[in-house]
Amino acid sequence: MKLTIIKVGGQIVEEPETLQQLLSDFSKIEGNKVLVHGGGRAATRIASQLGIESKMVNGRRVTDAAMLDVVTMVYGGLVNKKIVAGLQSLGVNALGLTGADMNYMRSDKRPVKDVDYGFVGDVKEVNSDLLADLISKGIVPVLAPLTHDGKGNMLNTNADTIAAEAAKALAKHFEVTLVYCFEKKGVLRDAENDDSVIPTINKTDFEKYVADGTIQGGMIPKLENAFDAISSGVKQVVITKSDEIGKNSGTTIVE
Amino acid sequence: MKLTIIKVGGQIVEEPETLQQLLSDFSKIEGNKVLVHGGGRAATRIASQLGIESKMVNGRRVTDAAMLDVVTMVYGGLVNKKIVAGLQSLGVNALGLTGADMNYMRSDKRPVKDVDYGFVGDVKEVNSDLLADLISKGIVPVLAPLTHDGKGNMLNTNADTIAAEAAKALAKHFEVTLVYCFEKKGVLRDAENDDSVIPTINKTDFEKYVADGTIQGGMIPKLENAFDAISSGVKQVVITKSDEIGKNSGTTIVE
Repeated sequence: MKLTIIKVGGQIVEEPETLQQLLSDFSKIEGNKVLVHGGGRAATRIASQLGIESKMVNGRRVTDAAMLDVVTMVYGGLVNKKIVAGLQSLGVNALGLTGADMNYMRSDKRPVKDVDYGFVGDVKEVNSDLLADLISKGIVPVLAPLTHDGKGNMLNTNADTIAAEAAKALAKHFEVTLVYCFEKKGVLRDAENDDSVIPTINKTDFEKYVADGTIQGGMIPKLENAFDAISSGVKQVVITKSDEIGKNSGTTIVE
Repeated sequence: MKLTIIKVGGQIVEEPETLQQLLSDFSKIEGNKVLVHGGGRAATRIASQLGIESKMVNGRRVTDAAMLDVVTMVYGGLVNKKIVAGLQSLGVNALGLTGADMNYMRSDKRPVKDVDYGFVGDVKEVNSDLLADLISKGIVPVLAPLTHDGKGNMLNTNADTIAAEAAKALAKHFEVTLVYCFEKKGVLRDAENDDSVIPTINKTDFEKYVADGTIQGGMIPKLENAFDAISSGVKQVVITKSDEIGKNSGTTIVE
């Protein structure tokens, strides 16, 4: 059985029209599916209104106890439930989950090295049996970027990581396609030309493109993560733009 | 198979020690169980910090669009996930749910008569099959006081109502005991004496106690709702204090 896991950024849920379009496109994807959403700027905005300062180090949020409450509220409550209610209205039987729910994803608080990121989790364990059972009964999990440590604490967790770890665990039960939506239509041959999408990349292509400079910067770790997922059993990884989901476009990464 | 559904107020989750005690007591209850939680003052406090005024009419919250976002965040995110993570740390495989999740509870926005309560839901439909299936697999649902209208909107819904409607629907699958926790140890024979708990009340007793003035005020609708649940298949309703759960104390209402 096939399963499509779509990861979208947090900013996509912030404009009602964009969200509505995404949910409509997502609802039309056939077969088993999972939606993973990021948090986006809503947490920063609400934290600021509550007088809590957002601290970023190397582009990542530092999550102190007050900020953990905010992201738990915003990602696990506001954003997740808006998506779930929206999908239900489109006939998709969505179920919003954090890692604490059914203990489906447990993480360890990230150890302090150079930076103390606070209540941020590195994924340790994914329990996918119940999740797979629900999916096979027609339930569509909607995963918030939150895990728990098994000691009573929620932990803020990167949505790309949630998507990859869920995909790897669910690959035991399904033939998984993992779709990452970002701001470009796919991996571009020419960064200046949005229509220069490379349709398929395998490991040999990847090494060649890195060597000749076609693929560089932040795209390198993105693709390394994609190959890591594939070597852990995920069938294929697609990198595309959120308004292209369900269109068989973008870049497909295969073994 | 037996099922115990415990409803606790929102204020209980606001003090870490009280919450920890409640979760510890709840974790010790044997067999299938469900926890239903209220929202409490956290929503009022956070709304006020966000500059949103809380309006109450007849002791009930008026939920405008801004307040709906707050209760969705606070009840569905902060309060619900704190409980779920806490229960997981005690070995209880909790799953936090709003009515939108798995479409388990759908409601209609309350019609405007004398008062416009805003985004408040009156329960219309409970889909308990998947819920019952999960319970029988060892999952412990943790129900937030939120439903959805099937048109994409979350709706604020009284936690006592959530508990009663879930109990009635789950009575098709289990022998249900519904436990309401409130500030007294049970229904008191003498309002001034906390130890004058009436252990058991049936319908005939109830009518007698109302006629002779032993039971009056807000306890009358509470007990009417209990008898309504019993006439809809719930085995028994217990009214007790939250720190007495699992102790076989309080007042048991039977047919």
